[in-house]
Amino acid sequence: MKKLINNPDRVVEEMLEGLVMANNDKIRLLDGENIVIRKEAPVKGKVALVSGGGSGHEPAHAGYVGEGMLDAACAGAVFTSPTPNRIVKAIKAVDGGSGVLLVVKNFAGDVMNFEMAAEMTRSNGTKVSKVTVNDDVSINDVARRRGIAGTVFVHKIAGAKAELGGTLEETQKIAEKVIANVRSMGVALTSCTLPKAGKPTFTLGDGEVELGVGIHGEKGIQRSPLKSADEFANIIVEKLIKDLSLKLQDEVAVMINGLGGTPLMELCIIYRRVAHILQDLGVRIFKSYIGEYMTSLEMAGCSVTFLRLDEEFKKLLLAPANVPAFCCS
Amino acid sequence: MKKLINNPDRVVEEMLEGLVMANNDKIRLLDGENIVIRKEAPVKGKVALVSGGGSGHEPAHAGYVGEGMLDAACAGAVFTSPTPNRIVKAIKAVDGGSGVLLVVKNFAGDVMNFEMAAEMTRSNGTKVSKVTVNDDVSINDVARRRGIAGTVFVHKIAGAKAELGGTLEETQKIAEKVIANVRSMGVALTSCTLPKAGKPTFTLGDGEVELGVGIHGEKGIQRSPLKSADEFANIIVEKLIKDLSLKLQDEVAVMINGLGGTPLMELCIIYRRVAHILQDLGVRIFKSYIGEYMTSLEMAGCSVTFLRLDEEFKKLLLAPANVPAFCCS
Repeated sequence: MKKLINNPDRVVEEMLEGLVMANNDKIRLLDGENIVIRKEAPVKGKVALVSGGGSGHEPAHAGYVGEGMLDAACAGAVFTSPTPNRIVKAIKAVDGGSGVLLVVKNFAGDVMNFEMAAEMTRSNGTKVSKVTVNDDVSINDVARRRGIAGTVFVHKIAGAKAELGGTLEETQKIAEKVIANVRSMGVALTSCTLPKAGKPTFTLGDGEVELGVGIHGEKGIQRSPLKSADEFANIIVEKLIKDLSLKLQDEVAVMINGLGGTPLMELCIIYRRVAHILQDLGVRIFKSYIGEYMTSLEMAGCSVTFLRLDEEFKKLLLAPANVPAFCCS
Repeated sequence: MKKLINNPDRVVEEMLEGLVMANNDKIRLLDGENIVIRKEAPVKGKVALVSGGGSGHEPAHAGYVGEGMLDAACAGAVFTSPTPNRIVKAIKAVDGGSGVLLVVKNFAGDVMNFEMAAEMTRSNGTKVSKVTVNDDVSINDVARRRGIAGTVFVHKIAGAKAELGGTLEETQKIAEKVIANVRSMGVALTSCTLPKAGKPTFTLGDGEVELGVGIHGEKGIQRSPLKSADEFANIIVEKLIKDLSLKLQDEVAVMINGLGGTPLMELCIIYRRVAHILQDLGVRIFKSYIGEYMTSLEMAGCSVTFLRLDEEFKKLLLAPANVPAFCCS
């Protein structure tokens, strides 16, 4: 294992410290906890958004904390959900009196821990709602679908809604509308290595990929032989279009998300084919995002996300945000 | 070799096509050439900035084309300088009548080809100046120092100067002032693989790194055993501070640049130590950039760049830019 780290037991603490030092105009650390909060939190009267999950997916989620997106991100250990107690502390730290929306990726640990935290804080009188993101179409059973890169669009759009004065009910409602209209699917060319494990989580042969991979290396649709970028784009886009029932004159935002070890060159080559397919279908691309938004340590590969847009989504997507890792221009 | 590509002979064309399709509000392709230009180029009366070099360093340089930075980026084949003819075409396409500044990284091929292009266009009456970036302190002989990630600060600051109405002479002068005040050094944990070669450019043992690596995998200061993130940060920062003669109350911008295969987690851990050293020295960090700015395909590793600031640099660094890969917020 070759990594630029110090102590495998301290990677999360040190990473968050670095991120916050570099962005101390936007975010701060909650003392002694792996919780990053918006610098001026709690913002009185504003609905607060809290997300989080295991670490190793940077910039998710701490990179999305700040004006116009999240109020807090709770980081667990690498690929491990944060505890309910930590989530409770985050909720308390950012509650501005108008309620808190939890944005949770659909993984068993996260769902359980965020739900427990919600119950614990509700019993103290805090208004807490929760949405669960399940954008990964590689699993047929919708209830079991994982939350992956599409989660970033929930942060952006629900975050803008809250920033513009949306109530807890309105913010939850628009988050649920994003979830209903966002789909993703990924492909992994390599595994990744957890700092404490020191060896790859799984192994792929020289000519093999994991199609429909989860962001922790979970199995997807199938082990597949390595194909061309265009062929992978074809397979993924077909699945996304079908699942979203995309049709002529629909408008979408597109995200090509690098999983950590794939260069921008390859993400652009994937984007090219994705954009051509949508053009041919008469689906309009309103805005595109190519980069690393929800990674799996140094895994090579990418995911493709489509978000079907309406006028409100378009306005909120372009609304200002001042966070470490999402650029609105 | 596992890459998300189609044809190794077409990676540059397809990558640029994807990048431009995703950013067609900002940039466009010059027909039939691997040249990306600002959408509204030529901008009448504005000094134009032209850069470029071999591909494989994305987002450099096409990701920096747009309002407030470059007017054109000429892409060569992977790790190969663009031809003088291509550079001439770029100069002609963006010349708005007030002259053109070429920003060249100090590699023999680039220096020769950009100089030939400058001479060819000057003979037609175009005002062309040239600056050469040599920020890589891993080489003692200053004349032989390579241009690496510090080049992005030249694009940003000279680009803002031109956007705000600077003359060719003023824009060249401030670019030279950036070059005099910017230093970088990198460390590679792995090699990268050129698409057409199909195998790694060089090899590093399991516990080995290349300290002071160039962005094409050139040798640096030494092959070193793998050390901790803090130890590498110590070595690099000591070199940068000494070369820049940084002292108490100086102000700097810091860039931690991922070389392509290193996750943001590790870049943040490196940043943490870099920031602590500067704090201890009493050097103020004005603004920090952590991400992928000048890569070497999927190479693992990073570089650290310091730019010493004055009031004009600070203003120009924060001036608006509307390009695919540099966020000003």
